[in-house]
Amino acid sequence: MRATVIYGERDVRLDDVPDPQILLPTDAVVRVVAACVCGSDLWSYRGIAPTPHPRRIGHELVGIVEEVGAGVQAIAVGDFVIAPFYFCDNTCVNCANGVSTSCLHGGWWGSTDRDGHPVDAAQGERVRVPCADGTLVATPTMPDDALIPSLLTLADVMGTGHHAALSAGVTAGSTVAVVGDGAVGLCAVLAAKRLGASQVVAMSRHADRQAIALEFGATGIVVERGDAGVARIKELFDGIGPDAVLECVGTAESMDQAIRSVRPGGTVGYVGVPNGGPELPVRTLFNSNIGVNGGVAPVRGYIEELLPEVLSGAINPGRVFDLELPLSDVAEAYAAMDERRATKVLLRP
Amino acid sequence: MRATVIYGERDVRLDDVPDPQILLPTDAVVRVVAACVCGSDLWSYRGIAPTPHPRRIGHELVGIVEEVGAGVQAIAVGDFVIAPFYFCDNTCVNCANGVSTSCLHGGWWGSTDRDGHPVDAAQGERVRVPCADGTLVATPTMPDDALIPSLLTLADVMGTGHHAALSAGVTAGSTVAVVGDGAVGLCAVLAAKRLGASQVVAMSRHADRQAIALEFGATGIVVERGDAGVARIKELFDGIGPDAVLECVGTAESMDQAIRSVRPGGTVGYVGVPNGGPELPVRTLFNSNIGVNGGVAPVRGYIEELLPEVLSGAINPGRVFDLELPLSDVAEAYAAMDERRATKVLLRP
Repeated sequence: MRATVIYGERDVRLDDVPDPQILLPTDAVVRVVAACVCGSDLWSYRGIAPTPHPRRIGHELVGIVEEVGAGVQAIAVGDFVIAPFYFCDNTCVNCANGVSTSCLHGGWWGSTDRDGHPVDAAQGERVRVPCADGTLVATPTMPDDALIPSLLTLADVMGTGHHAALSAGVTAGSTVAVVGDGAVGLCAVLAAKRLGASQVVAMSRHADRQAIALEFGATGIVVERGDAGVARIKELFDGIGPDAVLECVGTAESMDQAIRSVRPGGTVGYVGVPNGGPELPVRTLFNSNIGVNGGVAPVRGYIEELLPEVLSGAINPGRVFDLELPLSDVAEAYAAMDERRATKVLLRP
Repeated sequence: MRATVIYGERDVRLDDVPDPQILLPTDAVVRVVAACVCGSDLWSYRGIAPTPHPRRIGHELVGIVEEVGAGVQAIAVGDFVIAPFYFCDNTCVNCANGVSTSCLHGGWWGSTDRDGHPVDAAQGERVRVPCADGTLVATPTMPDDALIPSLLTLADVMGTGHHAALSAGVTAGSTVAVVGDGAVGLCAVLAAKRLGASQVVAMSRHADRQAIALEFGATGIVVERGDAGVARIKELFDGIGPDAVLECVGTAESMDQAIRSVRPGGTVGYVGVPNGGPELPVRTLFNSNIGVNGGVAPVRGYIEELLPEVLSGAINPGRVFDLELPLSDVAEAYAAMDERRATKVLLRP
């Protein structure tokens, strides 16, 4: 089959690779219906995170189950499934605590499973899915093609935005600002609104992304950044800042923006993969009782809650995709996101 | 009157200073019945925090109101009052949000008020209390002398331990470990138990402090520190660690101990004044979804909740005091705490 391999900075290729096979009784093989490129994939693409050896890449997919191992019970051949951006058994103590990203038997696409077998990555034609019963969520029926983009967001960005909001304690009546207008930031706007936030201000300088933020329920837009951004946010929220700031980028600048924008006693919910950014300034946090909560989002646990609203059309997070390409154009997909010609690119094998 | 002045490293003296007077209509003058030495006072005493100029010191007191300004309404001459370790109006937007330590009109004992007038510190015979209506809480009747130590803990350490537990999200059934066996750490044990924690493990190597921790409801003691401490804590909590770790010291080592001990998805509630310690390791926190929440404890807001239990004897946080001295022996009080001959010293003017 064909799958995407990253060789180094700005060098992404679609290679011929071995077809996936059932290796463990808990495995499934899934044919990828749609995958996509993540903002975090760009760290490697841009060479900020090194790529010492060529490796498979991609961690978001929806697809059709083609084969299951003898021990798989919850998933059947022919199911349409959503796979989170990691695999997990969904039963261990960490999964039970809601932290399936720390599953004792889980791992990452493009890596290896706990038995040392290689695990496929998502930007390809098929994947072997370890811990299939825990990892995959099947839709009740075969979804309409128009729903594919929104279903695909449940693999990562919508669940991640939801995690940012939950981590920051967003609830009915909360006041919220969102740092980052990428796919996750936009989904965080939607998530905060969905959780009942009374005010959601998106920090964005791009007209097209502002438009989606407003469509997702943002009540205001702030274009300023840095000191001017902090001042503008404070001005919009009683002079002190919002209850919650959702940090959806992962750079030093974005975390600083978040920490300085939130009100005393407020919480920064962060989900941007920290890209070697500076450590958190404990004394600043201490002095104003600013909490910092979040991390690699355990989106598997959110799929069941969000899926019905996607299927009913109540939420349409798939709007974050603004470019769709065939898998054979994966290199162009990366280039389009790298050059900010696209917010998020959907790939069809 | 006489009040304590710190001149530099290990140089604390009781000096003659001007008597406090009502300067603003919102002031009160309080005669100090009891004050004490805080672990955080030792940062200056030990020279870790510099003392460039001699300054008044002490921030925990209970006393009797001797005089009130024309604008004071809630507090009357003759009231027995608890003063938190800061002053606040208890009405501004930050106070309303539960963060009275960030009061827009508040400040610190031994500092200046928002009008630039000097503010007395607590280790003295009397204090001028700014924002008296907001700052002070009067007991319903004159308390028995035996209750003074516990009432005094509401000025800081009991409320601070309570804040650590609340910040970490401790609730009925939570599993908890406490780093630090000083007065705040011991009060954090009591607070966690009071909030319904099912398991509270105190990390302590001192027999006398272990005894108080057990009296306060600790279900276990861990004497190990560092890697061995982490391993022992994880062993005691399902192999993964407790839901909450309460960090009650403020050093680099104690924060590291807390972060490494908590379970994935758990929360570190921290109240130890960070003494120039390292910044928080964002990638470690991110990878395991460990939240960090807390700060300078807004204890003013906790006094009303905790006071009835102190008055009824349901809780007895005053047990953390293991030495009582006259104010004239304040230098010995500091030395005793510095040399760990005492956990916490109560001073009677």
